[in-house]
Amino acid sequence: MSLKNDLLLRALKGEEVERVPVWMMRQAGRYLPEYIKIREKYGFFERCQTPALAAEITIQPVDIVGVDAAILFSDILVVPQAMGLEVQLIESKGPFLPDPIKVKADLNRIRVPEIQETLGYVMDAIKLIKQQLNGRVPLIGFAGAPWTLLCYMVQGKGSKTFEEAKAFCYTQPELAHQLLQMITDTTIGYLTAQIEAGADTVQIFDSWGGLLSPADFEVFSLQYIRQIVTAVKDKAPTIIFAKGAWHSLEAMSQTGAAGLGIDWCITAPMARKLAGNKTTLQGNFDPAKLLSPIPTIVKETEDMLRAFGKKNYVANLGHGILPNVPVDHAKAFVNTIKNFDYSKI
Amino acid sequence: MSLKNDLLLRALKGEEVERVPVWMMRQAGRYLPEYIKIREKYGFFERCQTPALAAEITIQPVDIVGVDAAILFSDILVVPQAMGLEVQLIESKGPFLPDPIKVKADLNRIRVPEIQETLGYVMDAIKLIKQQLNGRVPLIGFAGAPWTLLCYMVQGKGSKTFEEAKAFCYTQPELAHQLLQMITDTTIGYLTAQIEAGADTVQIFDSWGGLLSPADFEVFSLQYIRQIVTAVKDKAPTIIFAKGAWHSLEAMSQTGAAGLGIDWCITAPMARKLAGNKTTLQGNFDPAKLLSPIPTIVKETEDMLRAFGKKNYVANLGHGILPNVPVDHAKAFVNTIKNFDYSKI
Repeated sequence: MSLKNDLLLRALKGEEVERVPVWMMRQAGRYLPEYIKIREKYGFFERCQTPALAAEITIQPVDIVGVDAAILFSDILVVPQAMGLEVQLIESKGPFLPDPIKVKADLNRIRVPEIQETLGYVMDAIKLIKQQLNGRVPLIGFAGAPWTLLCYMVQGKGSKTFEEAKAFCYTQPELAHQLLQMITDTTIGYLTAQIEAGADTVQIFDSWGGLLSPADFEVFSLQYIRQIVTAVKDKAPTIIFAKGAWHSLEAMSQTGAAGLGIDWCITAPMARKLAGNKTTLQGNFDPAKLLSPIPTIVKETEDMLRAFGKKNYVANLGHGILPNVPVDHAKAFVNTIKNFDYSKI
Repeated sequence: MSLKNDLLLRALKGEEVERVPVWMMRQAGRYLPEYIKIREKYGFFERCQTPALAAEITIQPVDIVGVDAAILFSDILVVPQAMGLEVQLIESKGPFLPDPIKVKADLNRIRVPEIQETLGYVMDAIKLIKQQLNGRVPLIGFAGAPWTLLCYMVQGKGSKTFEEAKAFCYTQPELAHQLLQMITDTTIGYLTAQIEAGADTVQIFDSWGGLLSPADFEVFSLQYIRQIVTAVKDKAPTIIFAKGAWHSLEAMSQTGAAGLGIDWCITAPMARKLAGNKTTLQGNFDPAKLLSPIPTIVKETEDMLRAFGKKNYVANLGHGILPNVPVDHAKAFVNTIKNFDYSKI
C-alpha cells in the first residue's frame, strides 16, 4: 500500500520535501491521557504483547497530536527477555532484571532466540498497526543498541553511570564481546522480522552510548551497531540514535545509516559539520523545553527549523517526551513544524 | 611559604613543566579506608565544619596516593546552606533539600550571606590545611557553579535530568536569573575568602552544565561563571569544570580561566581544537576505567599522556573517583603519570 504521507521516508533518503517531517521519541506513551487509561487496566508487557493494545497505543499520537510517523509501542528490553533473562518493568521505578549477567556461567542462561517464537507478538502488532494506519503515515520499528542492552543486562537496573556494566566490559572484555555479539545477532533477526512485517524504517536506540569514551564507543558499541545497520539498511532506512555520542557522528555517518539522531547539546552547524551534509539529522529539541509556555516553544522550535534547514532533516525531540508535558505543548511543537513557512529558509 | 611542588600552578599558567601534575576529583573521600574510618564517627557536615577533620581528610590522598595537589574537603552545597536553605546529605542517598525554591516568595527565605559568619569554618580549615601541608603541594579551593547549585536548590535532590530545575528556568526566567545572581554574588565572596585564607587555585564545578543546550548554557550558566572568573582570576588561577559542556569549551576558554576540565567523552585533539592551544586542559580518564586491571589502567593512562602532551595539561579523571575503586588502582593511575618518560612525547 502506498503511503499518503511519506515525508519521513523521503527526508531519510535525502530527497526534497515540501516541509520537515516530525515525530517525537516516546510519543506513544505516558504524557497522553488516552494512554494512561489503558495503562490503568493492563500491565506493561501485557500492553506490549497484546497486538490490539500495542496498535491502539501506537496510533494514538497520530490521531491526537498529528505526528508524521507512528513508532511501534514496545520496549527495548523485550530483546533481553526473549534471550532468556527475566525483565520486570515497574511503573515509575524503571526496569529491574533480578538475575543480571555477571560471570561466564551466566551466558549459559541466555541464547540467541528464534524470533517468531519469542517475539512474534511484535510482528503481529506491526501487521495490525499497518492495517489500521491504512497508509496514513509510515511506521517506525526499533530495537536497543547492543551496548545499551548490555548495560541493563549486566547492571540489572537503571543507573546514571552504569559503572557495573562498564567494569564488566573493562575486566572481562572477552565475555562482554560474546554477550554483545549474541545481542547483535538477535537484533539483526528482530529488526529484519519487523521490516518484513511492515515497519517502514527502524531506529536503533543507544541511550547510554554517551557514557563511553570515543575509543570505547567504537569497541563496545559502534562495531555492533555497524553490523546491524549493514544487515538491514538495504531492507529499510535505518536511524541510529546514540544519545550523547556526538563525538562519533562522523563514524556513525559512515555506517550506511540513513539518519542520525542527536540530542540538544549540539548546535545544528556543529552536527552538520561532524555528520557531513549528506546525512539526515533527527532531533534535537530539549524535552524539558516542552514544559515552557507555548510562545517559547513556538519561538524555539522555529529557531531549530531555521538552524537545520528543510533538507536532510527530521524534527524530533533530543530524547523521549517527559510524562508531565501537557498535550497542548506537544501539539504546539508539532504544529509549529507543520505550519512553518519553509519558503523563508 | 614557597611550594616544594608547584607543578599544578605552573601547568595552569602554561609554563614548562618537568612532568605532568596529577590530582583526582573526589580524591579526598569515600574510596579511602582512612576516610571511611572518620566517616563512621562523624556526620557529613560535622566533617566539613570541623577544621581538624576537614584538614585530615584533605591531606589523606597527598600522603596515601601521592597526588600533586590537595583539594579542600567540603561540598558544593555548603553555599545553599549558607544562603539559608536546609541541606541534608544522607550517606549513599545523596543530597536532600526539604524546602526547595519553587516560587517568587521562596527567594525571601534566602540571602547573600556574610561569608565569614556562615562559612568561616571553611577558611579556618584552609588555614589549618596550609599549615599542615607545609608547602608540600598546592591547595585547591572550590565552589559549585551557579547553575549546578540552582539545580539542587530548585529540584531539592539529585536527578538524571533536573527537569524541575529546567522547567523553573524556562517558565520563570526572571526568578531564575535573580536566584543565579544571588548564588553568583555569594560564590564570588566565598572563593575570594578561600583564596585570602590560602587556596592556591580554585575550581568551579558545573556538574550539570551538560544538561543544557549550548544556547541555554550561555544564558543560565556561563554568564554567571564568567562573572565569578572575572572577579577572582587575578587573585588565583581558576579552573572551570563544566561536565558534558564540550560545546562551550571555546567560550569558556575566553573567560580568562587558567584551566578547563573535560570529561572522557571528548578526544584530546578535539578538546585542544575547541579550547585553543593556550588553555590548560584538565582530565579526562574515565573514572569507571579505574575498575580495570592495573595493566589496563597503566596502558590507557599512558595513551592519555601521549594524546594530551606535557604542556598545558593537568592529568585528572573526567569526573569524581568512584567509591569502589581499590586504592592500588588509584595509585597505579597517579604513579603512571609521575613515572612516565616524558622525553618520549
